[in-house]
Amino acid sequence: MPSPLERIKENIRTIKAYTLDPLEAPIKINQNENPFGMPKAIKDEVLRRASEHDWARYPEFIPTRLLEKLAAHVGWKADGVMAGNGSNEMIQSVVNSIVEKGVKVVLPEPTFSVYRQVIQVAGGEVISVPLNEDLTFNIPRLASKLVSSHAGLAIICSPNNPTGCTISPRDLASLLRNSNAIIVVDQAYLEFGSDDFIPLLSEYKNLVILRTFSKAMAMGGLRVGYCLAAPELIQEFNKAKMPYSLNFFSMTAAEVALENMHLLQPLVEKMRGEQARLYAELQKFDGQLFPMPSAANFFCIKTAIPPKELFEALHARGILIRNVSSAPMLENYVRISVGTPEENDKLIAALKEILALR
Amino acid sequence: MPSPLERIKENIRTIKAYTLDPLEAPIKINQNENPFGMPKAIKDEVLRRASEHDWARYPEFIPTRLLEKLAAHVGWKADGVMAGNGSNEMIQSVVNSIVEKGVKVVLPEPTFSVYRQVIQVAGGEVISVPLNEDLTFNIPRLASKLVSSHAGLAIICSPNNPTGCTISPRDLASLLRNSNAIIVVDQAYLEFGSDDFIPLLSEYKNLVILRTFSKAMAMGGLRVGYCLAAPELIQEFNKAKMPYSLNFFSMTAAEVALENMHLLQPLVEKMRGEQARLYAELQKFDGQLFPMPSAANFFCIKTAIPPKELFEALHARGILIRNVSSAPMLENYVRISVGTPEENDKLIAALKEILALR
Repeated sequence: MPSPLERIKENIRTIKAYTLDPLEAPIKINQNENPFGMPKAIKDEVLRRASEHDWARYPEFIPTRLLEKLAAHVGWKADGVMAGNGSNEMIQSVVNSIVEKGVKVVLPEPTFSVYRQVIQVAGGEVISVPLNEDLTFNIPRLASKLVSSHAGLAIICSPNNPTGCTISPRDLASLLRNSNAIIVVDQAYLEFGSDDFIPLLSEYKNLVILRTFSKAMAMGGLRVGYCLAAPELIQEFNKAKMPYSLNFFSMTAAEVALENMHLLQPLVEKMRGEQARLYAELQKFDGQLFPMPSAANFFCIKTAIPPKELFEALHARGILIRNVSSAPMLENYVRISVGTPEENDKLIAALKEILALR
Repeated sequence: MPSPLERIKENIRTIKAYTLDPLEAPIKINQNENPFGMPKAIKDEVLRRASEHDWARYPEFIPTRLLEKLAAHVGWKADGVMAGNGSNEMIQSVVNSIVEKGVKVVLPEPTFSVYRQVIQVAGGEVISVPLNEDLTFNIPRLASKLVSSHAGLAIICSPNNPTGCTISPRDLASLLRNSNAIIVVDQAYLEFGSDDFIPLLSEYKNLVILRTFSKAMAMGGLRVGYCLAAPELIQEFNKAKMPYSLNFFSMTAAEVALENMHLLQPLVEKMRGEQARLYAELQKFDGQLFPMPSAANFFCIKTAIPPKELFEALHARGILIRNVSSAPMLENYVRISVGTPEENDKLIAALKEILALR
């Protein structure tokens, strides 16, 4: 009798699982989270609603109230919104709606590794388009590959994780116009100051925008993501999404957060201020650290000392960053999230100490 | 330029989305939920932990603490457990690990409709094995189809939703022994008194068991499901599952529930008592209603009056049940969940009133 393992698809057996070492540290700047946390007033209101709620009951089949709040928040129509269990589930639903064996997906790389994983699980073929040497998007190459490969889908993360580069509305519009692929733009880091692509949605029916509550919105622990597109596409994506995938608590938290943007917005402003300050500070490590310009709450930083060594030296000082050096083109890079002012000060001090020792 | 809709896979465009009309009623016995709700002491402890938690931080990459508690709860090894966003996500991860175009999946039907949806999204072919006329599993037919179709997978819901029938450990063992397909047994309704298949796990490496916190465990609103299998299979299933799919709040609720089984167990006992009482009461509608024997907290009931008519008459009286008559073989059936003693009394009274009018 053959082993049950032989029933597992070849494309699953051969991929390496997405993993993250369970390391801890007092200063955690490895996952691009909001370092200020959720404002207490929002937490209290969510907990109050949760205490009155009947947990045994399934969530609403269609979370109408949340969809309407999201539509109002972004300026799009409610039937063009799908919400679910983090952006990850949105990526999965879109990919599973489009990708099967033989379907090609254009992917600028390096980028968020979950895209490639989901495409491979679905049996699709990744058409990788490397970033330019300066870690910006190679737009002409993306445009030509979209056409020449007959791709069904492209996924562009803008600002891109982990490099921080962005695509301009003009370049995106040109890709959308000259290709009949569906183009997903993951805007997980939008709030930190890059272009909003919502205005392109009504013109380009092949545009899909992903957003999340996990970064600026201080809800990484609650997993709420959403997807914006033409209503006829959303209807199809919903078929590939599991029913009831958004639990009542996360749904409630998203609603209360949207009702209280005046409490969250100042935190985002603080993060943007710290982002600018940290960039200036990092640039002072001339000849040792080279931060890439970034429109997100993290920096991809080229380091003269080996990334693993820098990672370990910081971890020994209670600071957890992300070693991204296993990604193509990023052999000499680490990724560091923007923390609180105190955390950023400690990071700079630790970097000075470590690099002075060299 | 072709419409972006043409990029959607044929097998998505042709399926009908899983839907549920957003109807409301004072007595909600349409989703097999725990009608007593989560005990207040458990809610309070979960809310207390949540108030101290930093919501902005991603959940642990591997929820070790929960996996260990689950392992201890069921009597299996922690590295043979995967937990996630409801049983639905477990079904999706298992199916996406195994099913692609050309893979056949044996499915007794009628059953929970999400199985077919997920198989179709993955491009698989459903080999439907109808239940016997008395709505029990057709074991000889399942056995022969598993072999003759060269199926890669079978999904058996036991107790079966919506019919309540079960498979015996002996029959399941014989299917597992005589087939090299992976056999998933969804035991969402286990706690209401059917056989536990955990003892079969060490012997049969092709057995996968699914469990949930959504029914007996009073957490339908929080979406926690888990999957038990040989560790080498769990490792592969995890690759098809999205990282961080279980949010911190639902994870915490599952942990606190497991720590407080002494508070939940009496509710399950009450539900089992009501299940027996309701069955006896329903049998008294001789010639009008014919409840199928059920090992779950619901009954599949053949009705002499049209199901739609019965559904509407009950809804008019504030009672929401499930009209399952669109499923094959169930043209004359409704499904009614076991409610609280008061709810069941009101259901019986309403049924008497409705059926007396005929």
